[in-house]
Amino acid sequence: MDRDAILLTPGPLTTTLRTKLAMLKDWGSWDAEFNALTAGVRERLLDIVHGQETHVVVPLQGSGTFSVEAAVATLVPKNGHVLVPDNGAYCKRAAKLSQMMGRRATVMPVPEDAPIDAAAVEKHLAADPGITHVILIHCETGTGVENPLAAVAAVCEKHGKGLIVDAMSSFAALPIDARKVRFDALIAASGKCLEGVPGMGFVFIRQAVLEGCAGNSQSLAMDLHDQHVYMAKTGQWRFTPPTHVVAALSEAIAQFVEEGGQPARLARYVDNCRTLVEGMAKLGFRPFLRPEVQAPIIVTFHAPAHAAYDFKKFYAAAKARGFILYPGKLTQVETFRVGCIGAIGRNEMQQAVNAVADALREMGIPSGAPAL
Amino acid sequence: MDRDAILLTPGPLTTTLRTKLAMLKDWGSWDAEFNALTAGVRERLLDIVHGQETHVVVPLQGSGTFSVEAAVATLVPKNGHVLVPDNGAYCKRAAKLSQMMGRRATVMPVPEDAPIDAAAVEKHLAADPGITHVILIHCETGTGVENPLAAVAAVCEKHGKGLIVDAMSSFAALPIDARKVRFDALIAASGKCLEGVPGMGFVFIRQAVLEGCAGNSQSLAMDLHDQHVYMAKTGQWRFTPPTHVVAALSEAIAQFVEEGGQPARLARYVDNCRTLVEGMAKLGFRPFLRPEVQAPIIVTFHAPAHAAYDFKKFYAAAKARGFILYPGKLTQVETFRVGCIGAIGRNEMQQAVNAVADALREMGIPSGAPAL
Repeated sequence: MDRDAILLTPGPLTTTLRTKLAMLKDWGSWDAEFNALTAGVRERLLDIVHGQETHVVVPLQGSGTFSVEAAVATLVPKNGHVLVPDNGAYCKRAAKLSQMMGRRATVMPVPEDAPIDAAAVEKHLAADPGITHVILIHCETGTGVENPLAAVAAVCEKHGKGLIVDAMSSFAALPIDARKVRFDALIAASGKCLEGVPGMGFVFIRQAVLEGCAGNSQSLAMDLHDQHVYMAKTGQWRFTPPTHVVAALSEAIAQFVEEGGQPARLARYVDNCRTLVEGMAKLGFRPFLRPEVQAPIIVTFHAPAHAAYDFKKFYAAAKARGFILYPGKLTQVETFRVGCIGAIGRNEMQQAVNAVADALREMGIPSGAPAL
Repeated sequence: MDRDAILLTPGPLTTTLRTKLAMLKDWGSWDAEFNALTAGVRERLLDIVHGQETHVVVPLQGSGTFSVEAAVATLVPKNGHVLVPDNGAYCKRAAKLSQMMGRRATVMPVPEDAPIDAAAVEKHLAADPGITHVILIHCETGTGVENPLAAVAAVCEKHGKGLIVDAMSSFAALPIDARKVRFDALIAASGKCLEGVPGMGFVFIRQAVLEGCAGNSQSLAMDLHDQHVYMAKTGQWRFTPPTHVVAALSEAIAQFVEEGGQPARLARYVDNCRTLVEGMAKLGFRPFLRPEVQAPIIVTFHAPAHAAYDFKKFYAAAKARGFILYPGKLTQVETFRVGCIGAIGRNEMQQAVNAVADALREMGIPSGAPAL
C-alpha cells in the first residue's frame, strides 16, 4: 500500500503531518506576517540555548553545511587559523571548507570510535599560539559519537580562542546552555532534532564577537554579519527565504515546546536509542561505539559477518517493510547506521527491529553478529 | 475570512494547491526514489532550454542568489575578470558577489530604464581583452526590463568570452534555446516562473567548459563542478537537499508541461501583464518602462503624485483586499512593483486592479497619475 516509510536517517527525517501541513500556504517574503514568523522562530531558537542575553541567531538558506561554511567565513578573519579535532567525516568536511575559503586549518586526528579529548585540544592550543578558533562537531554523525562540548569550551575560554560548534545533529536534543558554555558560534538546521523539514540552517553568534565579524566573509550569500545587520533593520532575510520551510520549522518548534522542550525530546530519543540497541542486540548486532560515548541520535552498527549479507539487499528488504536505513560512513570497517531522531517513538523503533529481523530471515542470515 | 492573499511579487509567488500538496511526504535523501525525483527534475529542466546535447544542469540548495554566486565561483577562474553590464539592482549584486570572492569585476553602467546594448558590451570587450566572462541579467527584476540575451550571447561567442546568464525571473517564461544561444552558465530557481516553492536554484553549465571548472571554487558548498561529478556518480546531492522543495518543483514542472510549456506560460503572463497595465492605466497609473522593453514578469509603476499617497498605506489597503504588492527598488524615483507571474490568470489580475481602485478611493486619491 502507498504508505510513507519511516526514515531512520539523520535528516531529512520523519516529520509530523502537522508540520507538513504548515507548508500549504504561500507567504510574501516582504510581508509583515512573514517577518513576524521569522522573528518568532528566532526568538524561540534563542530560548532553546538560553542565549537571549548573550547571542543572536541568524538564519540562512540551504543545508546545514552552508551554515557551517557561513559561520567559518563570518567568524574567522581571513588571516585566522582554525584547529579542527577530527574524529569523523563532518570534522574533515569542516576542515576542508575552511581551507578552500583560504583560512589556515590544522587537523588534529582522533580515533573515530573515541570522543575528542579536551586536554589534547589544550596541548595543541599551547603548542601553536597562532590558532584563533577551534571547530568542534558536537555529535559526529559519521559514527554517532558525542564530543565533550563543555570541556572543549572551557579550554577555549581559558586560552582566549574562539569556539565554533557544529551542533547540527545535537541541537534541541542534547543540553546546550549558553549561560554555562561559552561559544562564539553554534550551528544547527531545520531538518534535524527540531523535526522540521530540510532547507535552512541557523547560526547562534555571540554578541561580544559580532561587530568584529564585519568584512570577514568572502561570500556575499554566506555573510552572516551582513544578514544580521539587515534583519535587525528590516526584519527580513536579504535573499529569498524558503518560506514554506520556515513555516514548517515554526510549527515544528511549537510541537517541540508542547512536548516539553529539550529534556522531553532527549528522553524520547534516549528511549528510541535504547529500544533500538537492545532489540538489535537480541538479533546479534553490535554497535560500533562503546555505550558511554554513544549519543542517542544515530547508531552505527557493524555489518553482519554472514556471507549472505549485502547492504543494498539489506536496505531493500528493510525498505520493503517500511523502514529507510542509512549507509555507514566509515572507510576501514563495514557498517550501517540507524537514526533515532524524528517524529517517531518506541513503537516505530520496535517495528524497525522486527523488520530487520524479518529482513535477516529473508536473506538467510541467522544472526547479525559481526566478525570478531 | 482566512483566505490566502494573492502574491503579486516576483517570487515567492502564488503556487497551486497541487504543488503545495506534493510537500506532504518525507523523502529519504539517500533513497533511490528521491534520486529518481531529482533526475526527473533535471531531465525536464534541460528539456526547457533544449540543452540535452550541450549542457548539464546542477541543482543547488538556497535562494537564487546562492546559485548566481556558485556559478561565478565555479565558472570564473580565480584570476578571471568579469564584465557586468549594469541596469539594475541584480546586476549590481552580481558584480558585488564577484568582487567579494576575489574575482576582478568591471561594471558597465546602463540607464535603469533601458536594456543593455550588445554593441556597447562589444566595445568594452574590445577595449579590455583581459575580460574573461560577461554576466548578464536576462530580466532585471529591479525594474522589469528585458535584456537582449541573444545579441549579447552572439557578441560573447564572437570574442571567445564566457557568458553567465542570470535568468532567475525569465526562465520558463521567456524563450531560451541553448541550440541557438550560446551560454556557459544560466541560472534560475524553483520559486519563479516554474511556479514551485522557494528553496533551491539550478545552474545550466555548458559541457564544453565543465571540465575546466574543476578547482575554481573557493567555496565547498557552492562548488557546482564538485556537485556535478558527485551527482553523476551517485545520483545524489552532496549535502542534505531540501526534499520537500524538490518534490514541489517536480509537481510544478508537471503542471508546466501540461499547460503547454514555455510558450503557454509566456502567453498567460503576457495576458496577465496586459490586463494589469491596461487596468492600471485607466486608474491613471503609468509604468516606469516603455512598453517595448517591458518583460511580462514584473511591472514597475510610478507612485501617484497625490499628496495622500504613501506606499505603506497603499500596500496595507491592497493587502486588506487580498493582494500583496511589492515595493519599488529604485533610488532616484518613487515607484512600486506588481508581479505578473505565479499561478494566477486574468481574473486575479483584474481583481487586483479593482482592489487598487478601491484602495485609492479609500485613501482619497482620485488618480494614480504620477508627477510629470
